[in-house]
Amino acid sequence: MGLFEKHSTLLNQAIDALHKRTFFAAYPEHPAPAVYGETADADGQAAFKTALGKKFELLKQADPVAWIGVEESPYTQEPLGITYPAFSIDTLISRAQSAYHVWRKVSAQDRTGILIESLERVRVRFFEIAYATMHTTGQGYMMAFQASGPHAADRALEAIAAGYEELQRFPSATLWDKPMGKFNIQLNKEWRAVPKGISLVIGCSTFPTWNTVPGLYASLVTGNPVIVKPHPGAVLPIALVVAEIQQVLSEQNLDPNICQLAVDSYDKTITKELAEHPSVKLIDFTGNSAFGSYLEGLQGKAVFTEKTGVNSVILDSVADADKVASNLAFSLSLYSGQMCTAPQNFYIPESGIKTASGTVSFDEFAQKLVDNINSLADNPKAGPFVLGAIQNKNTCTRVADAEKIPGKVWVKSRAIENPMFKNARVNTPILVEVDAAKKEVFSKELFGPIALLIKTKDTDHSIALAQEMAIHHGAISCGAYTTDSAVREKIADAMALAATPVSFNLVGGIYMNQNAGFSDFHVTGGNPSGNASFTNPEYVVKRFTWVGHREPVAAG
Amino acid sequence: MGLFEKHSTLLNQAIDALHKRTFFAAYPEHPAPAVYGETADADGQAAFKTALGKKFELLKQADPVAWIGVEESPYTQEPLGITYPAFSIDTLISRAQSAYHVWRKVSAQDRTGILIESLERVRVRFFEIAYATMHTTGQGYMMAFQASGPHAADRALEAIAAGYEELQRFPSATLWDKPMGKFNIQLNKEWRAVPKGISLVIGCSTFPTWNTVPGLYASLVTGNPVIVKPHPGAVLPIALVVAEIQQVLSEQNLDPNICQLAVDSYDKTITKELAEHPSVKLIDFTGNSAFGSYLEGLQGKAVFTEKTGVNSVILDSVADADKVASNLAFSLSLYSGQMCTAPQNFYIPESGIKTASGTVSFDEFAQKLVDNINSLADNPKAGPFVLGAIQNKNTCTRVADAEKIPGKVWVKSRAIENPMFKNARVNTPILVEVDAAKKEVFSKELFGPIALLIKTKDTDHSIALAQEMAIHHGAISCGAYTTDSAVREKIADAMALAATPVSFNLVGGIYMNQNAGFSDFHVTGGNPSGNASFTNPEYVVKRFTWVGHREPVAAG
Repeated sequence: MGLFEKHSTLLNQAIDALHKRTFFAAYPEHPAPAVYGETADADGQAAFKTALGKKFELLKQADPVAWIGVEESPYTQEPLGITYPAFSIDTLISRAQSAYHVWRKVSAQDRTGILIESLERVRVRFFEIAYATMHTTGQGYMMAFQASGPHAADRALEAIAAGYEELQRFPSATLWDKPMGKFNIQLNKEWRAVPKGISLVIGCSTFPTWNTVPGLYASLVTGNPVIVKPHPGAVLPIALVVAEIQQVLSEQNLDPNICQLAVDSYDKTITKELAEHPSVKLIDFTGNSAFGSYLEGLQGKAVFTEKTGVNSVILDSVADADKVASNLAFSLSLYSGQMCTAPQNFYIPESGIKTASGTVSFDEFAQKLVDNINSLADNPKAGPFVLGAIQNKNTCTRVADAEKIPGKVWVKSRAIENPMFKNARVNTPILVEVDAAKKEVFSKELFGPIALLIKTKDTDHSIALAQEMAIHHGAISCGAYTTDSAVREKIADAMALAATPVSFNLVGGIYMNQNAGFSDFHVTGGNPSGNASFTNPEYVVKRFTWVGHREPVAAG
Repeated sequence: MGLFEKHSTLLNQAIDALHKRTFFAAYPEHPAPAVYGETADADGQAAFKTALGKKFELLKQADPVAWIGVEESPYTQEPLGITYPAFSIDTLISRAQSAYHVWRKVSAQDRTGILIESLERVRVRFFEIAYATMHTTGQGYMMAFQASGPHAADRALEAIAAGYEELQRFPSATLWDKPMGKFNIQLNKEWRAVPKGISLVIGCSTFPTWNTVPGLYASLVTGNPVIVKPHPGAVLPIALVVAEIQQVLSEQNLDPNICQLAVDSYDKTITKELAEHPSVKLIDFTGNSAFGSYLEGLQGKAVFTEKTGVNSVILDSVADADKVASNLAFSLSLYSGQMCTAPQNFYIPESGIKTASGTVSFDEFAQKLVDNINSLADNPKAGPFVLGAIQNKNTCTRVADAEKIPGKVWVKSRAIENPMFKNARVNTPILVEVDAAKKEVFSKELFGPIALLIKTKDTDHSIALAQEMAIHHGAISCGAYTTDSAVREKIADAMALAATPVSFNLVGGIYMNQNAGFSDFHVTGGNPSGNASFTNPEYVVKRFTWVGHREPVAAG
């Protein structure tokens, strides 16, 4: 049985889920021993520890010019000491070009089978990838497992399914039979889905697999060779994924350079040179807006970006203010606000928030948020694991600088102790009240555990500000709390026009930061926070070109 | 019965045809009295004549600042004398912005019903539009009828069907029910297809409806208001279409400014100002490469272009050289080479073309082409009607200059008499032999009745040149003649990589210039001849954004 047949049931489930958008997950998100094996966690941790301080030799890319690696753990603040093979731009491009003419001739079915098989292999390494993710991104263990493991694999499968479906959209051949009255004109027609060419996928430091695999698998399933250029600070998690892809390719007697890893270091980055290379036709990027916009401006390439945004929470009326404050404090704290979906700007009317038991004033709600932030941080069984660690030292500087924002500091950021890692780089959220007139303060992303409380004239003012921020500065998520159906529709419409999805009235164990594969489009592509969406049809159709040839049935 | 129900059978047929790509045409291409009515032709001609020299008062756009119009007939070389209402940029934009918030709230079903109804109204005017097209573009009567009437309406229906299908792709609402072990998280989710905003559709002088209606209807069906900016030299055909759209909108009590006509003149063009306006989010353009590339470079807009290309014919081996020469001479002559799909560069090996009855030398085949060009031009029942007239005087200059191309002029362009229009601007094709080393001569589009014969070392050389031209300078069509299946696949693969569709071994009554709606993608979007394709999924999905909102089933 071939790999396509082996995985066709899963593929069909995934395609069905893409359309229905009801709950679907191919890879269980809980690291349960019953699912992943009794020793899976311990084995994964051991494998991670074994990798430290050594060459990463799982890749099938021959003849490196050097071995490089600069990762360090936000938990220990020490180098991982892992080095990866490095190659010249010419080598990377020429290998990709050769691989292109191999891979594009592999059928869509075979490509799909190979790629799903690679996810099954990655599944076996979920725990190893989880520890690699913790010690490069600073994510807590549970997030590291879920985001880099099952959730990333689901997003990859989603991209494969979307690509496969588009490749099947038109017939490979048909008879075109046109009645002309006394005779028919008959043409044999055929259509080829021609992959665009070399695909460059640029990773980020905070979600090194989750944000990389959608573009990686979308390009591969549509027949393009891929060069993965990870962030220098977060290589290992995606290196393990690339190694598994190369392994399956090799087993199928295909060139492993169909998917290459291209590692660089902070002092000698290769991203621009790769991106500007005329043979690179596709670019996926997650990261800062300036570089993303530069990439979007490159001519002759299809570019898919996820950049920065200013995420808002609109507070109008609530059933239970305490539940809301608890939910939002968790959203703020989760991975220390280092998620692209984390809330930043909280708009509260100066008259307060209407509740079933009377109005909660601006100050009262601010205090509830403070109390919830503190009680979460100070809960030793939750705080350190929810907050994780700060990936980049610059984020700590930004948090410190936030105290200088003009306005009342409701709670300062502070360090808490992580019981497992004494040197962990930890900052609890800082909460600052900002005047609604001071747009220059809150109209930019303040990446990290920084939240702003903005006192507005009324909910219409809140909506207008949230919409304006999203349209002009981008937004990836939005939270809104209202018990009034007319206000709800006003928010839904205003934010839809700003291409921003709204989570209404979330309380309990679901947060605006969370996006589910096969159901929630991630980034809409319709505002400055990015031009692409996981995984809508545009995300895959732009990676290949339909070309149709034709010939008379009886030529001559 | 609503308009959607009225037209749902046709819509479903169109969607089915889009997928199967077998023959489908909603609007019969032959101007048969039995189909369109005994007096339809005479009535259409009379309506056209009545319009001459008057204000065009069928539009529902109030308070013009001026009445302008500069069209002249290539057949009479006299002004049509028709003037159209003109508006300030501010008026056009502010009316479109108001209309946006009306049109986006009309359901996809209702929009689809309204738009198909408008095509049914346009159908009644096919003959009037045909005469308007003849006397603006110079097309012969049959082409003017077919291209501007039924073929354009089919392309419009194709865009409506493709857009409607994409709008139905995801559910408007669903229950997301995630098992968490002891409980389920249940979210009500909804998705909105949010139109991007004001759409500007820029027409060309040679196919004023055929090249305009796909973008026009694709933008409208996906909820965007449209400003149609026709070429100043070819307004009337598309003005009649816009008038019918406005009529149906008015009957439905909708703002007719959902689709506006924005006429300008050569001495005061408004295209750039409209295109650069920040409220314009979508741009469709057919025309020259320089302006098209400028538009593609505008940031923050989705731009769909059809620009220029260098179309090749690769001659390797044929069953019957005379039939091939006859077919290609017709392709060259049809509308005097003013089709974007017309062949320009003919690559013939120096060793000649292999045939069933021996080799036909380069010179022998060149002479066959000359003989066929002449016999078609000199056939009074065919020549004038196939050639039509030259739309733009500059094309005549280009044809005259072509005699100076270094190489043997196999046949010069000449004027022939059109029996119905003594003043018609007519040029038969010029055929020049060019050295294969002189790439600077044949690596650009020579718009009009100009063809080049290029002597190559062998067929591999021919293929390499055709591919190079397409990759670097664009190509919209390619002809190829070979009786060798290995050579056929070599050509099919090489031109697929250059994103150029190939017509193999066409003889008889079908020509490489012709593209059928619902089957042949027009322009692939994969080479410099344009970045868009009629009508592939990308052509419609980029016109709106999917935005999903969600809320717990039991909030609070």
